[in-house]
Order: sequence, then C-alpha cells, then structure tokens
Amino acid sequence: MFVLVNLKTYPCDPVAVAEAAADVAADTEARIAVAPEAADLRAVTDALAGSDAEPFAQHVDPVPPGSSTGHALAETLADAGAVGTLCNHSERRLRLDRIDGAVDAADRTGLETVVCGNTPTQVAAAAALGPDAVAVEPPELIGTGTPVSAADPDIVEDAVAAVAAVDPDVDVFCGAGISTGDDVVAARELGAEGVLLASGVAKADDPRAALTDLVEPL
Amino acid sequence: MFVLVNLKTYPCDPVAVAEAAADVAADTEARIAVAPEAADLRAVTDALAGSDAEPFAQHVDPVPPGSSTGHALAETLADAGAVGTLCNHSERRLRLDRIDGAVDAADRTGLETVVCGNTPTQVAAAAALGPDAVAVEPPELIGTGTPVSAADPDIVEDAVAAVAAVDPDVDVFCGAGISTGDDVVAARELGAEGVLLASGVAKADDPRAALTDLVEPL
Amino acid sequence: MFVLVNLKTYPCDPVAVAEAAADVAADTEARIAVAPEAADLRAVTDALAGSDAEPFAQHVDPVPPGSSTGHALAETLADAGAVGTLCNHSERRLRLDRIDGAVDAADRTGLETVVCGNTPTQVAAAAALGPDAVAVEPPELIGTGTPVSAADPDIVEDAVAAVAAVDPDVDVFCGAGISTGDDVVAARELGAEGVLLASGVAKADDPRAALTDLVEPL
Amino acid sequence: MFVLVNLKTYPCDPVAVAEAAADVAADTEARIAVAPEAADLRAVTDALAGSDAEPFAQHVDPVPPGSSTGHALAETLADAGAVGTLCNHSERRLRLDRIDGAVDAADRTGLETVVCGNTPTQVAAAAALGPDAVAVEPPELIGTGTPVSAADPDIVEDAVAAVAAVDPDVDVFCGAGISTGDDVVAARELGAEGVLLASGVAKADDPRAALTDLVEPL
Repeated sequence: MFVLVNLKTYPCDPVAVAEAAADVAADTEARIAVAPEAADLRAVTDALAGSDAEPFAQHVDPVPPGSSTGHALAETLADAGAVGTLCNHSERRLRLDRIDGAVDAADRTGLETVVCGNTPTQVAAAAALGPDAVAVEPPELIGTGTPVSAADPDIVEDAVAAVAAVDPDVDVFCGAGISTGDDVVAARELGAEGVLLASGVAKADDPRAALTDLVEPL
Repeated sequence: MFVLVNLKTYPCDPVAVAEAAADVAADTEARIAVAPEAADLRAVTDALAGSDAEPFAQHVDPVPPGSSTGHALAETLADAGAVGTLCNHSERRLRLDRIDGAVDAADRTGLETVVCGNTPTQVAAAAALGPDAVAVEPPELIGTGTPVSAADPDIVEDAVAAVAAVDPDVDVFCGAGISTGDDVVAARELGAEGVLLASGVAKADDPRAALTDLVEPL
Repeated sequence: MFVLVNLKTYPCDPVAVAEAAADVAADTEARIAVAPEAADLRAVTDALAGSDAEPFAQHVDPVPPGSSTGHALAETLADAGAVGTLCNHSERRLRLDRIDGAVDAADRTGLETVVCGNTPTQVAAAAALGPDAVAVEPPELIGTGTPVSAADPDIVEDAVAAVAAVDPDVDVFCGAGISTGDDVVAARELGAEGVLLASGVAKADDPRAALTDLVEPL
Repeated sequence: MFVLVNLKTYPCDPVAVAEAAADVAADTEARIAVAPEAADLRAVTDALAGSDAEPFAQHVDPVPPGSSTGHALAETLADAGAVGTLCNHSERRLRLDRIDGAVDAADRTGLETVVCGNTPTQVAAAAALGPDAVAVEPPELIGTGTPVSAADPDIVEDAVAAVAAVDPDVDVFCGAGISTGDDVVAARELGAEGVLLASGVAKADDPRAALTDLVEPL
C-alpha cells in the first residue's frame, strides 16, 4: 500500500513532516511519500535521505529543458530528489494534451507518475496515457474528513475496474477525506493500491502520530 | 465514411459551403457534415434543411444552462440545429475534466461527440470518456496539404488499434492535411471511419467541386 | 444610461427578451442592449431590427480570420449584427494579453467593447487596454439580487475614479445583483454610465415588465 | 540599473550562475538578481548569501496558504529566500484577475513584483495593478540575440511613457534579445530602469564573463 502525503501549500513545516515520514517508514511495510511545494523539495529530500520514505513533486510541466519560465521541469525535480510526481490534481487541472506531455516528461527522467482525476471515467482516460498510477479523488470530498471509501465506495471500485479495462498495469490510488488507518484499510479492500492524503497529516499537531495511525492497521 | 468539414474562422461563406454540401450529399453514400462558427450555426442549419448533410458545432462547453457567460451551451447548439459537435480540437484544447464534462453535456441533448487529439495515445484517452468518435490530428500537419494518411500512416493505424483496445464502439476519424478523394480513401484503408478537413473545402474557389472530389472515389 | 442585458446560458427565449427590449427601448432615453449566446445572435439581431435596442455578443476571441476552431471571431459577430461585445466576464476570464488582443479584434470590426473586471483595480487595468467601457462586477454579488450599488457603493465610486485616472474616455459600468430601477439610479448616482444585468430580466416571467421597471426611474 | 537574470528551465547550473552573480555584484553599482526554477531557489539563495546579488522567483500564484496543490505560494518563495518575483512572463501568461491576485499575494509577504507584458499597452495595464515594476518583452524577440532596444526602441520609450501615465511609481524594465553591455546601456538611455535577460547568461560558457560584460559599461 502506498501512502502519498500531499503537503499542498499548507503552512506546515515540510521538513518536520518529512522527518516523521522517515521514522514511520522504518516500521511499516507501506510505502510512504511526501510531496512538498517545489521550493521545498530539496529540503524534504535531505530530510528523507537514508530513509525508506520518498520525496514526490506535486506537479510537473510538459516542457523540455529550455525557454519555459515559471514551469516545473522534470529534470530539475529529479535532480532535486523527487522519485515521482502528482499530475492533474484537482487543484491543478491540465489540458489532456498537457497531461500526455507531462507523463512523457516524467518518463524522460524516470519520475513515477500519479495522474489524478475526479471520476472513474477520468482516471480511465488518464490510464490510457501510460502513467504508473492514477488517483481518483472526488473534489467535493477533498478536505472534508469524510473518506471517499465511506462516502462513495463505488467510486473506488469503479475506478479500479475502469482502469483495469484500459491498462491493468496502471495502479489505482484513491483520495479525498482520508485521515485514519481504517480509511486506508477500506481503500485497500476496495481495490486501491494507494491513498492520497493531505490535511490529515499536514495539519496534524503531531504528524508522526497521524502517519503512524494511518499505516498501523495495514 | 464521414466527411466533416470544419469551417474554423475562415472568411468563407458558410451558407455557400452548406449549400454545396447539401448538393453533394444527395449523390454519395458518404455522410457529410458542416461545422461553422456558433454564430453561423442557424444559417447553416437552414441551408441544410431537407438535405442529407448535417450541421455540426465546433465546440461545446461543459456547462449546464444558467450562469455561464460566453460559453457554448449544448442545449443551444442542439436548438440551433446541430446534430453533433467537435470537442478538444487542437485549436481549442480543453482540460481533461472539461472534455469529460463536455461529452456529458452533449449527451444530455443528444449531440454526437467527436473528441480530437494529437496522437493515438490522446485519442485512446479520449475514447475512455465515452464519445461517439475520436479524431486523431497531428497538429504539425494541419493546413499543410500533406495528408496524415501519407505523411504518417502509422498514426492512423495506431489510433484505430489504441481506441479499439479502450472501447471498440468509438469510431476513429483522422484529419490534418486531407484535401483529395485519394486522401479520404487512404484514410479509410488505414481503418478510419471518417475524416476531418477544413481549408481544402473552406478555402476552395468552388466548394461543390472540392467536396465532389473528396467523396467521388468512395 | 446604458442597460446591458446578458442572457448568459439561461434557458430563456432570447427572441422574446429581444422583442421586449425593442418595445421598451422605444419609450426611454436609456440605451438598451441584449447579449445572447453566439448561436442566438442572428435571431436576436433579427428581433431587434428597426428598433433602438442593440445586439451584443458575450465574448470575442483575440483571433484573426483563419485557423481558429471553436472561437468567436469579431468579423462573424459583427456580420451577425452585434454592435458590441462583453469581454473578460467573470464567467469567462481571459489572460491579460488575450484581453488586449480581443479589444484589438473588436476594434478591427467596429465592435464596441465592454471589458469586465472584479475590482476597481482590475477595471483600471482593463481601461489601459483602450476599450470603450469597462464594467466592475464583484463576483460574489452576481446573481444574488443584492445590488453592488447597495452592498458596496465604494466599489463603483472607486472604479469610476481609478478608470478616470487611467483614461477618462473609458466609460464605467457596474453589475452584479442589479434588478430594479432604483438599483440603476443608484448606479448612475455613483458615477456609472451603464449597468450589466442578467437574471433580473432573463429569468423574469415578464421580461418587458422587468425592463420597464429598470428604465422607468431614469 | 537592475539586471535580472531569468534561468528559465535552461540546463545550466543555477548555483554556478549565482556564484558568478555574487562576484560581479560586488564590483558594480548595478543591482543583479538571479531567478531560478522554484526547486532551485533555496540553492541559489544559499549561493548568494552575504553577496549583493538577490534571489528572485520566476512565478508566483494568486493563492493563499492552504489547499493549492502544485502552486507557487508567496510565503514559501519568501521563506526560500526570494526577494522578488517575475509574474506573467510571456512563457507563463496569466489571466488578468490572477495577475492582480499574484501581485496581492507577493505584497502579502514583501516580495517585489515585476509583471511582464508583450507591449506598452499591456505593461500599462499591468502597472494599474500596483506592482513594483513592469517589464516589456516583445515575445518575437525573446532568445533572438537582437535586443529590443535596437530592433524596436519605440517599444521601450512607449512603455515608459504609458506606464508613467498610469502610475509614475512603477519602474519599467525591458527584455528580449539583450545580451551585451551596450544593450543594457541602450535600454537605460530609452528610459528603462532594468533589463530582463536569460540565454545570454544562462547559456554562456562563462556566466561570470557574460555578467561582467553586461554591467561594465554602466
């Protein structure tokens, strides 16, 4: 099971979350990644060095090295330590052709790709672009504390089935409202191979305890 | 075979092209559609009334009736006579979630959907959204007069195979550089069930002759 | 005073609203315009023919005649009868460079331009692009029935002052929540030379009565 | 005179350029800044520590701290050492309302803002949004090696005049094609208070020599 912690632009300390992730990753079979803002990526990479937890980027642009002011270049993210990246998060939606280009850009440098979508249909479409994984996240549940696995379990099962029909090699994650270990277990039982979460860890007073709670039941 | 004439924003007379299409449609097995700008849609519908040729829209927005200034509402396009619509043309690319919403909006009113993409991969992704057809158009060939069927026949065959793997009920069209009947035949032989073309008819001195040339070899 | 009725994508009958506008325009000093969807523009133009009311477009794209699928070309809007167009409405925001291009495109064909913005600052910026008018509309008041002139009269006065400092030849309109003649009078007293409104007329059971109420106190 | 070196997504070593900038800044009256990708910002800040050269960001998003995946938060850029940021570069154009929001976001954290535009008209509009500076850069000259000050000096003079008419407190920079000290002097003589440049330094074999050439004639 993959637990991907998206720090968004929360006013948290990304290094503290990374250190918590490094600690918790040592005691679990689950794979843990932390996705900070681009400007915090190297600091998170440093904090995770030598641990089993992994740095991720929140976004990658479909551009080559060169004249692309204000973009996130795959090579730079990889150089800053990212092993993978989110793409097309509901807070950073892209055009279809640009998601295609972003997956290609990530592939160019060996970054894993997790392409997000609102619905089973959208993640099935995303799966056709050849990412490593897709993540279904109903936007209306993001940040609510009501997990998608409880609010609408069909979304997860439908996404798993729809993606398998397009490309069975693409993993399916789910997100939105996930904050407890029970939510993670429920996601796994519905067929998800990973979860995306954010506020449950990023806004926690004790990120280490929050992460421990998330992976303990696995 | 479906011949879809996209008038773009060319300074042509859309009614004259529509009248030519109406004439030519009477003498061919091919299905012919004309896609004018939204503001010309009713005039084209009037010119095609009683003929076998069909009015199409160039774009539909993923919005419901209501507060959406400056958008193309599916209901209004249908009311103006459109039987279908292009979507995500390379000159009007959309976000993945909005293509999904646009297909749903078109379905709401019975409009056929032809979702465009640059590559076999992109039209396979589009096929997962449940349109009636997809159209693969390499942007670098648009307007060149070099047909995709000659410049890069693999693109058409790959698109047909990739879309069939996702949803065999979705038709595959191709476009870019198509201007002669031979190009249309070549597209059909590569597995396409339709072609998108624009300047070859819209900029022709004699649109009727241009359309006749296109469908005659079929 | 200019009363610009934006029909958005409301499920109203644009011809009926146009006929009401034609009637009411005959009995008032106020200038009245009706802005339907692009696909309804010719029908509204026909309904307004011979009257003092005027057809407007809701949006114009910064493109020349040619290869621009799914766009609103200034020449086509003018040919369909529009005398002017909205631009950058809060439901159809544009990039700064595209607003600049849209104003130029409209100028190319003699269309009047009304560039919208959320705040006095934004309409002052828009005024620097050389439109005929700008319209300040706080998005949070749109469709509320609470007029900007009552909810936040400073917005109108500040917009008038900020625009005058940039270019005194640019008219200032205001919008959001305007539905009565008192609202129009209040807008005029705050320095606005026009109002934008939508649901108050487009959703009225009797558009003629609604329009009459709006212009009567002027 | 302000010399702002935009590293874009060039495959250069941002730390080496920063070290060169630190050296050159010690021997000139000119203000020098280096704008790397977000993921390289902290490394550049470290390399510039204790020098007179300054770290800049290439882009800032109009978002508050919170739920904004894949965005550049002003607070994070400032925390990573940026003293200012570009905004609306021609390779990263924004909607008018978002430029307004980005300037506000930068102000929130004390970041200087340099809002770019293609034309004198666009930078005059940008000036109305209250940035510290605007930069006029004709996109067709970017990366050409033909400086705007030679290719079209009127653009610089017109921008200076247009911005002064809107807000005389806003500085005017120019960019596109600038690569020599003579180009910088010419820009200054046309009224610019700064220059934007990129490839001339980022792609130089010897960035220190390139920067020295740029500031020596000042």
